[in-house]
Amino acid sequence: MSITLAKAKEIIAAGEKKAAEIGQPMNIAVVDAGGNLISHVRMDGAWLGSIDISIKKAFTARAFDITTKDLGENAQPGQQFYGIHASNDGKIMIFAGGIPLKKDGKVVGAIGVSGGSGVQDHSVAEAGAAAF
Amino acid sequence: MSITLAKAKEIIAAGEKKAAEIGQPMNIAVVDAGGNLISHVRMDGAWLGSIDISIKKAFTARAFDITTKDLGENAQPGQQFYGIHASNDGKIMIFAGGIPLKKDGKVVGAIGVSGGSGVQDHSVAEAGAAAF
Amino acid sequence: MSITLAKAKEIIAAGEKKAAEIGQPMNIAVVDAGGNLISHVRMDGAWLGSIDISIKKAFTARAFDITTKDLGENAQPGQQFYGIHASNDGKIMIFAGGIPLKKDGKVVGAIGVSGGSGVQDHSVAEAGAAAF
Amino acid sequence: MSITLAKAKEIIAAGEKKAAEIGQPMNIAVVDAGGNLISHVRMDGAWLGSIDISIKKAFTARAFDITTKDLGENAQPGQQFYGIHASNDGKIMIFAGGIPLKKDGKVVGAIGVSGGSGVQDHSVAEAGAAAF
Repeated sequence: MSITLAKAKEIIAAGEKKAAEIGQPMNIAVVDAGGNLISHVRMDGAWLGSIDISIKKAFTARAFDITTKDLGENAQPGQQFYGIHASNDGKIMIFAGGIPLKKDGKVVGAIGVSGGSGVQDHSVAEAGAAAF
Repeated sequence: MSITLAKAKEIIAAGEKKAAEIGQPMNIAVVDAGGNLISHVRMDGAWLGSIDISIKKAFTARAFDITTKDLGENAQPGQQFYGIHASNDGKIMIFAGGIPLKKDGKVVGAIGVSGGSGVQDHSVAEAGAAAF
Repeated sequence: MSITLAKAKEIIAAGEKKAAEIGQPMNIAVVDAGGNLISHVRMDGAWLGSIDISIKKAFTARAFDITTKDLGENAQPGQQFYGIHASNDGKIMIFAGGIPLKKDGKVVGAIGVSGGSGVQDHSVAEAGAAAF
Repeated sequence: MSITLAKAKEIIAAGEKKAAEIGQPMNIAVVDAGGNLISHVRMDGAWLGSIDISIKKAFTARAFDITTKDLGENAQPGQQFYGIHASNDGKIMIFAGGIPLKKDGKVVGAIGVSGGSGVQDHSVAEAGAAAF
């Protein structure tokens, strides 16, 4: 079961809608079951540095089938996954904004959001995920 | 004069339409005047390796204000720009599919397409550019 | 609204003047709205390792429209952006010395300074930014 | 004998003058005896992709104490240095625009120029080198 481009666009549109509501322009990306990018948008005025981060948050959420928020808590100094951000050629993001997309309990992709605070990014990612 | 996300989506939609017509699924990317990604789509069934290439073709077309097809002709062994593909940390693509987007004669962004033959990629990029 | 080379030179000259006053040779860089380098200088005797850092501090300040000093505070272990330094292919600097350059409230570029303590780097960057 | 920042600025200014004369905006960089950047400028309207290339042409010209034009002739397929562009982490440019700067017959730095044809780049680099 793969995520189609049409579905990815719906997910992103839901994220864009939420971002507009909270008044914070975002970068939003969706990856498939292979962790590969299906689609990305940078809303007008969103941070340039967040292009890369949104795509990598999506990758990370699928790579470990976990939200980047949860992974981040386990990746702090002293925690069991501290140092994981150095793996995978720099593609691992350990702060909020990445959420796995599940179908029948199985992870089939992920959404990654970057452009605001951790709380904002996560809430936009949740809005996108809810559209799946 | 910057390219909005709404405009980038129109450009990509025109590219998708052309790709559907020729029956070859594509990756299509649009970058702004700074060479930074605004949006990307991978059509269902398009090559995974072309995600990166489409984004880099768009970057290249803006980086040198030239189609990647024309740049490629000048980047062959013995030509004046041979070796340019080794610059910019691997972001330079020297085969067809990248086209600058111009406004009043000035380059304000670019489209990059990858997923088929050079002729196909270039024709889809042209269709996208025509929508600008 | 773009920063011209002539303007970038003025910004850098103001930074050089401040660096001379405090007796600490610096690397100073200015990037445009797209995060791309406009100009860089390394003052005589300034650290070699700071060439790269000054350019990346400028990039970072534009990438997230924030001073690298402020970003750094949010990028410490346990903070919301911890791990952001692993993004953008190693181009994110999370210590003082990068400041966005604003025109009519909009970020149109940034200055990055490296060569001394965080306090020194930030003060030289401020002097440069003040000339904009 | 090292190149001062003041001297690097003179070299670059001479290059800028030549570029203005031929009507082609350029990126111009000067490196020291260690191959490390002293200063860089991007003239208004010059190619974004040439920022990196100008700096790397200067590095290359110092790294092998040769013009990048001459190195390029020896780096074509079938020639003795073919493949050298893959060395030094992608910092080797093998097309015209880089020229070593000599003092009493000894190479003490280099200039790198990018922004036009190979002939234009080389002529601007020569104008800069002549000011040394």
